[in-house]
Amino acid sequence: MKSLTAYLWFETKQQREFINITDKVENLVRRSGIADGFVLVSAMHITAGVYVNDAEAGLIADIEEWLEQLAPYKSGYRHHNTGESNGDAHLKSLLVHHQVIVPVTKGKLDLGPWQQVYYAEFDGQRRKRVILKVMGE
Amino acid sequence: MKSLTAYLWFETKQQREFINITDKVENLVRRSGIADGFVLVSAMHITAGVYVNDAEAGLIADIEEWLEQLAPYKSGYRHHNTGESNGDAHLKSLLVHHQVIVPVTKGKLDLGPWQQVYYAEFDGQRRKRVILKVMGE
Amino acid sequence: MKSLTAYLWFETKQQREFINITDKVENLVRRSGIADGFVLVSAMHITAGVYVNDAEAGLIADIEEWLEQLAPYKSGYRHHNTGESNGDAHLKSLLVHHQVIVPVTKGKLDLGPWQQVYYAEFDGQRRKRVILKVMGE
Repeated sequence: MKSLTAYLWFETKQQREFINITDKVENLVRRSGIADGFVLVSAMHITAGVYVNDAEAGLIADIEEWLEQLAPYKSGYRHHNTGESNGDAHLKSLLVHHQVIVPVTKGKLDLGPWQQVYYAEFDGQRRKRVILKVMGE
Repeated sequence: MKSLTAYLWFETKQQREFINITDKVENLVRRSGIADGFVLVSAMHITAGVYVNDAEAGLIADIEEWLEQLAPYKSGYRHHNTGESNGDAHLKSLLVHHQVIVPVTKGKLDLGPWQQVYYAEFDGQRRKRVILKVMGE
Repeated sequence: MKSLTAYLWFETKQQREFINITDKVENLVRRSGIADGFVLVSAMHITAGVYVNDAEAGLIADIEEWLEQLAPYKSGYRHHNTGESNGDAHLKSLLVHHQVIVPVTKGKLDLGPWQQVYYAEFDGQRRKRVILKVMGE
């Protein structure tokens, strides 16, 4: 069994951004020399998500609007009594989930034709991390 | 470490269908000879989901209605400017998530008494795939 | 490759509870002697969730209220024709997801500064289980 771990750092300019990280995940797999296994891609913060979907700008705007409807940015979250104002970002993170596993087959990400791996920042403008860990043989 | 990979193909008759694939996942684990490990079950399309829950028809109808309330089929998604009409299916896929890991113990799926693995098609009537990959020893 | 499996039992006093199980996951990893790998933490019931987020009481109350808005406890679910009254708990389980993978690096849970692993009970007052399985080397 082999494994390789890397960390991606982000500090987005906007409070919310959606960043395609598929090539970074592919790079790690290539460097690992692993032909068959799993790569975990997991946000290390509780106000960000990682998901797999389409690299299409209209859809990304739809996703952002939809998340805002289901988990709105607003005052009144109890969490804000701690001095934070990012209650919505925690809920958005739960909704899209903070991690995915990408299967690796014959040394490549075994994704469908339209599947891309996205980092979803819901409370940016600060340094945040994603862990990538590939395991296999 | 051993691993085995298989692909399930679907072409549903309805636009939306929920298909119990637990036995197919079990079959792969049996064929692999793996006694202890993880099976990844992951949709390879961005308008389908994979989840674990109850094989009860009333509940499945509840899930479908609930998804329709939270991520409605409608015109007006920006994604539709690409010529598609399946914006809702992308959001439903994000909501239920597109993958699960099933633990394998003593050569069997280590699921609770009511846990079944479902493929959730949100934009069917076309050929689509799910990857199964088991890894362990 | 090494692996170790354990089961956590819960029987909550309340119908809904959020229980921080991070230390139990850490204990298993320590006992396994695995330095590098993945731990799966997965509810074995279809009316409970497992998620990673903040150990902050206000936020937990926000999460509970938000889940109740998006997947309300109510009569009228078709699932209730089976004699159950927990349709909402199934939907809440789908929404927060029933499992996470925690990466293990240098023998420790490789979590971000605020990440804690939670068991979310949505239909308690009965015995329920979570599986922990760590795999690696």
